[in-house]
Amino acid sequence: MEEKLTEDERNDALSFLVGWTLVEGRDAITKSYKFADFVVAFGFMTQIALIAESMNHHPEWSNVYSQVTVTLSTHDVGGLSALDVKLANKMDAVASALLVLEET
Amino acid sequence: MEEKLTEDERNDALSFLVGWTLVEGRDAITKSYKFADFVVAFGFMTQIALIAESMNHHPEWSNVYSQVTVTLSTHDVGGLSALDVKLANKMDAVASALLVLEET
Amino acid sequence: MEEKLTEDERNDALSFLVGWTLVEGRDAITKSYKFADFVVAFGFMTQIALIAESMNHHPEWSNVYSQVTVTLSTHDVGGLSALDVKLANKMDAVASALLVLEET
Amino acid sequence: MEEKLTEDERNDALSFLVGWTLVEGRDAITKSYKFADFVVAFGFMTQIALIAESMNHHPEWSNVYSQVTVTLSTHDVGGLSALDVKLANKMDAVASALLVLEET
Repeated sequence: MEEKLTEDERNDALSFLVGWTLVEGRDAITKSYKFADFVVAFGFMTQIALIAESMNHHPEWSNVYSQVTVTLSTHDVGGLSALDVKLANKMDAVASALLVLEET
Repeated sequence: MEEKLTEDERNDALSFLVGWTLVEGRDAITKSYKFADFVVAFGFMTQIALIAESMNHHPEWSNVYSQVTVTLSTHDVGGLSALDVKLANKMDAVASALLVLEET
Repeated sequence: MEEKLTEDERNDALSFLVGWTLVEGRDAITKSYKFADFVVAFGFMTQIALIAESMNHHPEWSNVYSQVTVTLSTHDVGGLSALDVKLANKMDAVASALLVLEET
Repeated sequence: MEEKLTEDERNDALSFLVGWTLVEGRDAITKSYKFADFVVAFGFMTQIALIAESMNHHPEWSNVYSQVTVTLSTHDVGGLSALDVKLANKMDAVASALLVLEET
């Protein structure tokens, strides 16, 4: 089973995650992504859905047109675990390819 | 272009929509769906994404594991239009097939 | 690692799978599904994609509008394994809910 | 309604499409894409599914793990139309962003 990150581990992980912030009043991290349009945003969500189901670790997320906002936390440990850091990194990797579309 | 529903039209539409409620403080409607698991929930979202893109009318929605919460409103008219009623009906139709899994 | 099904195991599995047939000249099974339209067909594919990625066992499949044709085989064993039978059963379960739409 | 491209229009369009070839014995064009893995391949398919449904013009396509093979033709005109050229260009645009992942 996953274990809750210690404060040191959490701070260490957060120092490497770009654009992720702690949720106020919760032991969770959040980030918003903005894509070129709804099609790209939902393509992102589909890639992440496949990865999340495979990890058996799912995000809380919302979508409004081209924007996707994600909150990550591990229910079983009541806070952040290594799974959240792993999924956050995967999301950033998938998004970085898709955002190319927006920048050109 | 779409037109904002009159109060009579809105009340009429809502009387036919099961489980949809008005959002407090906004001219918008909302509903939560609960599916068997994340796979079915995301299958629902994908069908709706295809329909929404085709209508060029997109929901505000959030997902936590097997639950999908949707809010519908028409930005261009600053409230509810016939497009919201149409998309709400489509969502209920798609969900009613998928929910069979949960009930059996 | 997965093991190739013996001829007895394969015949036994096939006797329980409805609508699946052996592919001529290959140790693989195939089935075609017909849905109400493209939206439902792609919703099916998305649910199966999530399940397949999670099993790390992926179908060969094709889609033309409302039709999805699937071929299952296990590359690592050069034929059918228990993973194929499991994925075939998952596909039938997902399809059975979605096909309700077509029948009503 | 769509009209079938003349031979001149077809040759002209094909001269601008990179990697697309005519299908032998059919008035249709085809291309294969190879992505980093199944997740990216299915993310591509989802973006294209949204675009295709919105155009009401759907591909014939197959997928094996990280590979997606597409055939485009317009049923209503019995051959290639401007819709096929448009969808081919959209596919190349979506793929070009996703393939970045594979190249880095």
